[in-house]
Amino acid sequence: MAGSPRRAASRRLQLPLLCLLLQAVTIILFAIFVRYNHETDAARWHWGNHSYANNEFYFRYPSFQDVHAMVFVGFGFLMVFLQRYGFSSVGFTFLLAALALQWSTLVQGFLHSFHGGHIHVGVESMINADFCAASVLISFGAVLGKTGPAQLLLMTLLEVALFGINEFVLLNLLGVRDAGGSMTIHTFGAYFGLFLSRVLYRRQLEKSKHRQGSIYHSDLFAMIGTIFLWIFWPSFNSAPTALGDTQHRTALNTYYSLTASTLSTFALSALISGDGRLDMVHVQNAALAGGVVVGTSGEMMLTPFGALAAGFLAGTVSTLGYKFLTPVLESKLKIQDTCGVHNLHGMPGVLGALLGVLVAGLATHDAYGDGLESVFPLIAEGQRTAKSQAIYQLFGLLVTLVLAIVGGSLGGLLLRLPCLDAPPDSQCFEDQIYWEVPGEYENEAQGPLTVEEPDTRA
Amino acid sequence: MAGSPRRAASRRLQLPLLCLLLQAVTIILFAIFVRYNHETDAARWHWGNHSYANNEFYFRYPSFQDVHAMVFVGFGFLMVFLQRYGFSSVGFTFLLAALALQWSTLVQGFLHSFHGGHIHVGVESMINADFCAASVLISFGAVLGKTGPAQLLLMTLLEVALFGINEFVLLNLLGVRDAGGSMTIHTFGAYFGLFLSRVLYRRQLEKSKHRQGSIYHSDLFAMIGTIFLWIFWPSFNSAPTALGDTQHRTALNTYYSLTASTLSTFALSALISGDGRLDMVHVQNAALAGGVVVGTSGEMMLTPFGALAAGFLAGTVSTLGYKFLTPVLESKLKIQDTCGVHNLHGMPGVLGALLGVLVAGLATHDAYGDGLESVFPLIAEGQRTAKSQAIYQLFGLLVTLVLAIVGGSLGGLLLRLPCLDAPPDSQCFEDQIYWEVPGEYENEAQGPLTVEEPDTRA
Amino acid sequence: MAGSPRRAASRRLQLPLLCLLLQAVTIILFAIFVRYNHETDAARWHWGNHSYANNEFYFRYPSFQDVHAMVFVGFGFLMVFLQRYGFSSVGFTFLLAALALQWSTLVQGFLHSFHGGHIHVGVESMINADFCAASVLISFGAVLGKTGPAQLLLMTLLEVALFGINEFVLLNLLGVRDAGGSMTIHTFGAYFGLFLSRVLYRRQLEKSKHRQGSIYHSDLFAMIGTIFLWIFWPSFNSAPTALGDTQHRTALNTYYSLTASTLSTFALSALISGDGRLDMVHVQNAALAGGVVVGTSGEMMLTPFGALAAGFLAGTVSTLGYKFLTPVLESKLKIQDTCGVHNLHGMPGVLGALLGVLVAGLATHDAYGDGLESVFPLIAEGQRTAKSQAIYQLFGLLVTLVLAIVGGSLGGLLLRLPCLDAPPDSQCFEDQIYWEVPGEYENEAQGPLTVEEPDTRA
Repeated sequence: MAGSPRRAASRRLQLPLLCLLLQAVTIILFAIFVRYNHETDAARWHWGNHSYANNEFYFRYPSFQDVHAMVFVGFGFLMVFLQRYGFSSVGFTFLLAALALQWSTLVQGFLHSFHGGHIHVGVESMINADFCAASVLISFGAVLGKTGPAQLLLMTLLEVALFGINEFVLLNLLGVRDAGGSMTIHTFGAYFGLFLSRVLYRRQLEKSKHRQGSIYHSDLFAMIGTIFLWIFWPSFNSAPTALGDTQHRTALNTYYSLTASTLSTFALSALISGDGRLDMVHVQNAALAGGVVVGTSGEMMLTPFGALAAGFLAGTVSTLGYKFLTPVLESKLKIQDTCGVHNLHGMPGVLGALLGVLVAGLATHDAYGDGLESVFPLIAEGQRTAKSQAIYQLFGLLVTLVLAIVGGSLGGLLLRLPCLDAPPDSQCFEDQIYWEVPGEYENEAQGPLTVEEPDTRA
Repeated sequence: MAGSPRRAASRRLQLPLLCLLLQAVTIILFAIFVRYNHETDAARWHWGNHSYANNEFYFRYPSFQDVHAMVFVGFGFLMVFLQRYGFSSVGFTFLLAALALQWSTLVQGFLHSFHGGHIHVGVESMINADFCAASVLISFGAVLGKTGPAQLLLMTLLEVALFGINEFVLLNLLGVRDAGGSMTIHTFGAYFGLFLSRVLYRRQLEKSKHRQGSIYHSDLFAMIGTIFLWIFWPSFNSAPTALGDTQHRTALNTYYSLTASTLSTFALSALISGDGRLDMVHVQNAALAGGVVVGTSGEMMLTPFGALAAGFLAGTVSTLGYKFLTPVLESKLKIQDTCGVHNLHGMPGVLGALLGVLVAGLATHDAYGDGLESVFPLIAEGQRTAKSQAIYQLFGLLVTLVLAIVGGSLGGLLLRLPCLDAPPDSQCFEDQIYWEVPGEYENEAQGPLTVEEPDTRA
Repeated sequence: MAGSPRRAASRRLQLPLLCLLLQAVTIILFAIFVRYNHETDAARWHWGNHSYANNEFYFRYPSFQDVHAMVFVGFGFLMVFLQRYGFSSVGFTFLLAALALQWSTLVQGFLHSFHGGHIHVGVESMINADFCAASVLISFGAVLGKTGPAQLLLMTLLEVALFGINEFVLLNLLGVRDAGGSMTIHTFGAYFGLFLSRVLYRRQLEKSKHRQGSIYHSDLFAMIGTIFLWIFWPSFNSAPTALGDTQHRTALNTYYSLTASTLSTFALSALISGDGRLDMVHVQNAALAGGVVVGTSGEMMLTPFGALAAGFLAGTVSTLGYKFLTPVLESKLKIQDTCGVHNLHGMPGVLGALLGVLVAGLATHDAYGDGLESVFPLIAEGQRTAKSQAIYQLFGLLVTLVLAIVGGSLGGLLLRLPCLDAPPDSQCFEDQIYWEVPGEYENEAQGPLTVEEPDTRA
């Protein structure tokens, strides 16, 4: 199917050896560095005579589970829309996210919670690791179908490290607020993936175009992904916020924003199509933009009205992006964006960051009362004014964009190493390169699952 | 496909303009009226020096998330059973529910929590809005495949308003108990939809009969909906009850009731078929009747035995309904009930209301102790006896039926407005009118996805 | 399709009459024995002036819901991988689990919580019943496609009883720790099913081999099951542990273990295939072995490193088992294991039990502090040393294996009763015997859904 026997042998061993190597390294690093934190350690928790009811677990674990479902079910199935790439979409999501969870526990641990030579873990580190995995999967969406699993594992390694650094710069050094990750997760993941895809540009991708669309049932599978992302997004944005009113408010804002992006997506999708018919691509993706756009401002006093307006705008921009921008990105800028992550995560992420600038800049002691400490501790402590916080927020966006663009470009160069096995242009979006695909019955009746080129049948 | 160019243009614009108009209106109304409540507002929450652990969020949000999953995943996929209507089933569920959440926040807010000129929102309003959306989706099930999205948006507008009024009359004016909504959600939604379907009766629906069945994979997709409804129903019925033992007991009762309706559904389905084989329609639907039937009495001291008996009865009645009543409804009463909502929500809802009458009438101070206040506050305060409460419960059912029947009939008249675009009789249960349906590959090999009438091929 | 009219009549009535009989019996037993516990009973809860916030519901119900989703969505869809057996996989899962929940409430209640002539139920009994249902579904996996629903109901009856006895012996008599059920759930369920399958050995199963594989979309449906099992497994293992740090730690350990079993599964799957391609069977199953292997030790001070190492080992052993052991089991030992439960539950379960022996044997007062009471109460109270606890753990594994093997063999004899209707060898893995299967359209274009043997078309 692809080249010489030697190359085949290399392909055969690249993925397993890389998996084993990476797993061996993280096991050793875990043995040296990772310890239970005071909420998960038997001796330390009981030492303080804590009531079990105060354990962080009870305040964050339900949200964590929703986030976990979004990462594995949501992202995994959302990408199953491709007719012949379902195994890879859901399977590689599984693999990359599993690695990202381990690896980002280490990276984020070294940067955020390294005390006394140890990384301390609990439900908060679980949420943060899942957030990092989400960012990796966003980038995966940009290069979906055009990269092999070994390439993707290396991408994950690099991206997790840069994600951790960017997050550290924003949250710890700059004091930027970004609970739901409009910047750290969505903007970073999208532009990292887009520039990586730019470097991996395939002039001959046309050869695989017949596989790049969906079929009826693959679109229904993708809707499983969409709906699980949509319903759990309120938990995503609120999972890491301050407890109490802040977590509650964030969930509420996200809930409203998503309803509005859904309505605007349906409206725009029907409006811009030639014949008034809806496009499943828009519904599967743009309807989710309302979750992205309140990633930064969701914990703030955005107001329910603000949440609706933001969601409406995000759904509109995202749908228009799928229709008008994605083709231009490919033809003019040579960025091939399989899932349209620029429309779902890129633009709504930047919009969300800017909305965060605005809402932070408008923060007043009156509006937040004693809750100001939970949302803007630096303003509450008098170290910053609302306006300077807004400027820091804007600067955070710039840092994110720069790191994502530089990192994605470097990642692209790394993935172009000739030793790494990429699918040939004529075999993109095709499961059979990586998976034993079943189904003589299917092959007989249905074209989609055969690997052979159309001409081989003539 | 459908009529003159003018009509095509009208169809093209109806849906998007209606979406934009409705969204603009709710954004404005939200700006004027909707505010954070004291659990979601930064200043007000911290003003009282509350501990974050007491925030309502931690007691209701996990239940809310389950309810949210039921509305979007459960109802959405349950209706995917139709072979050519999967995009519409899950897509319009998405659209209608998104609108219903916003709109019922306003309607329920005006009626239930309008203080000082404002509606105050938090996790309880989120649960209530999702409940209203569920009722709309029940009605959607009755007219599934026979109505266009613009019609359905208008139906949603009307039904949300009437739902709110009915709920207000029952819960606030009559002091009726109906936590899980046997009356307010299921009975109301079912009869509203059935009478709406009656007014929209299509004599020529036969022309689309070949599309009204399921195919193998569409039945599996539908089982995703069924199972998510089934597992989360305990959370549905218990989401809005009093905290503590009441919420706990409601979940437990619902859990038992559902196991019994599952067993009786399998038994009856095999018993009434000619050859002992099971019918997926029964399993997908009637097995859920156990959740509906304890919607009113689930919070009461129903006893685990009572829950099992109720579930058993509901599964039996519902399965028999699919077999014997649905055909009669269509042939004699001209009610075309696509999903059989009369069997899953109508009859079990009425049964549930009557069970509530019975269990309320048997309430004693001995059985409830100081917990009587949580379940029957008016009895606990001496304003009512158990028997008078039972009579009010019965009266609540009558009010619900009247409002649903009148409202559904009015809704049917509204939806028959000639300007509203309905699918022609020969194009019911067909996605391609409203969606760009993919798949040359599928079309080549599989009949189901082509729009053309069989005769066009001759 | 199968034999004489008399036999057909018997088949027609077996399932419904058995369902009705069993349901009638449990309803009566519930009426006599089952009562609300002090957390779900209105009078008893309020009698103690408890704060609603202390109700067990708030600490266990979110975990319960995840477990519930695993049982019905996870196990149900995992088994949908068979191309013509999707209705039965998800449908019989539904039926068997519904019966198991009721029946094990009774069995576990008599053995564990029988006070004053009554069984007392609440969220803990709900979790325990779901655990028992999981064990039944594991056994179902071994005989999937080769047994009729009436046979399966009898299997459930027997297995639930033996599960309860085994659990009682281990947890109550021997003081063994096994929160996530490496022994009580996985080892027991697997070997019960395997020996049952041994007794039901079919020499002529070859006749149905063409139906024993998957097709493209059935594998995607199965991944829904896999992913839901994977994401919620941390809740499964932690659902019944002591509250506070123990529950928190168990979830964390399980989360790490699963990430490692995922990486080792991908590595081994690619390594052992001829051409470096991944096998969906491995990904669907072996990636979950990390959850099984920490079922016993997850609540202990396993350390994050230990969790990773255990998961890595389990994924490796499980993948190798699918490749090398399953064929040998069938050819040499005459054990036909449809889903490979020996690889996913059997070996990882035994490994998990042994890991529990090791970690229990290493327990020290230093490592656990005052938390020792929560994990090893008998050691904390000075009744046992860590080493004697380890020996009891090992003994628990032996008891489990003996009971499972004896029970499964007896079960096999029971299911071979000639009056019970089993599918003929040529009709295994076939929905149409038990279900009305839709789809003329599908039948026209796609081979897989027709029942007729290939030769009938010639």
